[in-house]
Amino acid sequence: MPDYKFDTTCIGNAIVDVISKIDDVFLDQEGLVKNSMNLIDEARAEDLYGKMGTAVEISGGSAGNTAAGVASLGGLSNYVGKVRNDQLGAIFAHDIRATGVTFDTVMSEDGAATARSFILVTPDAHRTMNTYLGACVELGPDDIIPEMIAASEVTYMEGYLWDPDGGKAAFRKAATIAHEADKRVSLTLSDSFCVDRFRSEFIDFIDGGVDILFANDDEIKSLYQTDNLEEAISTVRSKVEIACITRGKHGSVIIQGHTSVDIEADTSIDVVDTTGAGDLYASGFLYGFTNGYSIAQSGAIASLAAAEIISHIGARPGISLKDLVAKRLG
Amino acid sequence: MPDYKFDTTCIGNAIVDVISKIDDVFLDQEGLVKNSMNLIDEARAEDLYGKMGTAVEISGGSAGNTAAGVASLGGLSNYVGKVRNDQLGAIFAHDIRATGVTFDTVMSEDGAATARSFILVTPDAHRTMNTYLGACVELGPDDIIPEMIAASEVTYMEGYLWDPDGGKAAFRKAATIAHEADKRVSLTLSDSFCVDRFRSEFIDFIDGGVDILFANDDEIKSLYQTDNLEEAISTVRSKVEIACITRGKHGSVIIQGHTSVDIEADTSIDVVDTTGAGDLYASGFLYGFTNGYSIAQSGAIASLAAAEIISHIGARPGISLKDLVAKRLG
Repeated sequence: MPDYKFDTTCIGNAIVDVISKIDDVFLDQEGLVKNSMNLIDEARAEDLYGKMGTAVEISGGSAGNTAAGVASLGGLSNYVGKVRNDQLGAIFAHDIRATGVTFDTVMSEDGAATARSFILVTPDAHRTMNTYLGACVELGPDDIIPEMIAASEVTYMEGYLWDPDGGKAAFRKAATIAHEADKRVSLTLSDSFCVDRFRSEFIDFIDGGVDILFANDDEIKSLYQTDNLEEAISTVRSKVEIACITRGKHGSVIIQGHTSVDIEADTSIDVVDTTGAGDLYASGFLYGFTNGYSIAQSGAIASLAAAEIISHIGARPGISLKDLVAKRLG
Repeated sequence: MPDYKFDTTCIGNAIVDVISKIDDVFLDQEGLVKNSMNLIDEARAEDLYGKMGTAVEISGGSAGNTAAGVASLGGLSNYVGKVRNDQLGAIFAHDIRATGVTFDTVMSEDGAATARSFILVTPDAHRTMNTYLGACVELGPDDIIPEMIAASEVTYMEGYLWDPDGGKAAFRKAATIAHEADKRVSLTLSDSFCVDRFRSEFIDFIDGGVDILFANDDEIKSLYQTDNLEEAISTVRSKVEIACITRGKHGSVIIQGHTSVDIEADTSIDVVDTTGAGDLYASGFLYGFTNGYSIAQSGAIASLAAAEIISHIGARPGISLKDLVAKRLG
């Protein structure tokens, strides 16, 4: 058994993004809610792809993007997710390893193809995602290697993973192992529709032992069923060690015990595609947190990583985030 | 049999580009000559991909890019090229059809996988290509539908197609059909190394009946084995009806009989990736030429289409070239 040591292990749906620019009329015609993530079956995937314009393929998956971000920042990064042994699976595996991430999850040899997310980017740079989970449904508890989780300072899991049943079971197993090893468990709520699907399960899981929670303002309000962000923040404060609440161009607030740290967003950049903003924010915070930076410093790294990712198409870093941090934050 | 009518039919190697940013040291280490196109086998493809960083996949292929450009300009565009019925083949077919191109070449059901070109982009925006031809070797004369060629004002073929034997035979068949139907034959020399491989065959083919020739300054000098561009231009003047000689940031010159028309390059843009500059130049010229524009006007459209493609990663138009021409050239 190798002698593992990781800052983070990220667990999620392993997906190749198929990104296309569309106009708002297309969303209306297809009955899609802007900024949402919709699960689609194979027939709908074919239908939607047939209607979409020319696209670009880039490795994605929420937690995969976060894992790539941690590695690009210079962190020790591990990823768990399921692809099939097909051309898109080979692309996914190549890209995440090429960023420096450890990725040892066994590929499935039959069943559904590697997952794709058809990401529609409107002229306002917002993204609407349509995900065919494919091989992701094959991920299960057997894919969780206990020694890897026990060797990770933080095990981070995406809320989207609750959609496939095996993912949820893998998720719970990993959380148990992490806590038994006195390591931290982190969760991102992923999407407000995802929160709607699993609200009570998420609340139980958070109360039962999430140490670091990531959510945007819509997701945290949906979780606690309130229209008042302050009320949601007040509730979450007593539930987790740290909560990072992102608010798009309004920046983010990081809650820890009685303190709140406000982090500004970088509004100087030209926003091209918001895909991955939350994922890379999590990369920055987790890298900072597991490498001895303060909460405020970790938040600044998070904000910088998020700004880089929305300045170009795709949710994987286009440059070395380590170099970017050295240049911008010294 | 459908009632075909095309401005252009483009025939070439059907390829998905795998684009990665690298530094000059990587080219040196791998013994690669900047700006060249290198043919690689499957083993070298695996080796090179393993050494490359994270990549983006975008449909490509020189003549495929030209066909997409003609369609994006509003032209009636047809494409002939061979992919396998696999995930990358489905991506290629989707993207070219989504641009509005007719693409009816039958996919191969076995044999090598869909072709990939590993395109390495250096910080100076230059590209070095490493192409695994894969399923492209299956293209042959049977893939040339006579009614389509006879219904095309111009049949345009890439020099790269001379590498696979079947491609060369398809190429000759298409040229014969085009001339029998009193339509024009066009050729791009593609690459100076490609010219080196097939110089005498290219000279014979051009003398035997190429009407519109595309080449950059290196390729035309290589063809006629001279260091003097003026001398090469003087030679080609008597060989073809029209020759378009591109010179990168120095623009292009279009030769027709005794006249020469100089076309300026758009040097105002921020050059990101030069992949596809020649391909889209050809789109612009062929669209203009087959739609009643003058040589000078066609050159201006060519220059604009080339400038658009080098302003972003990938060799397929990122916006409607028809709208761009309407806005910029009225």
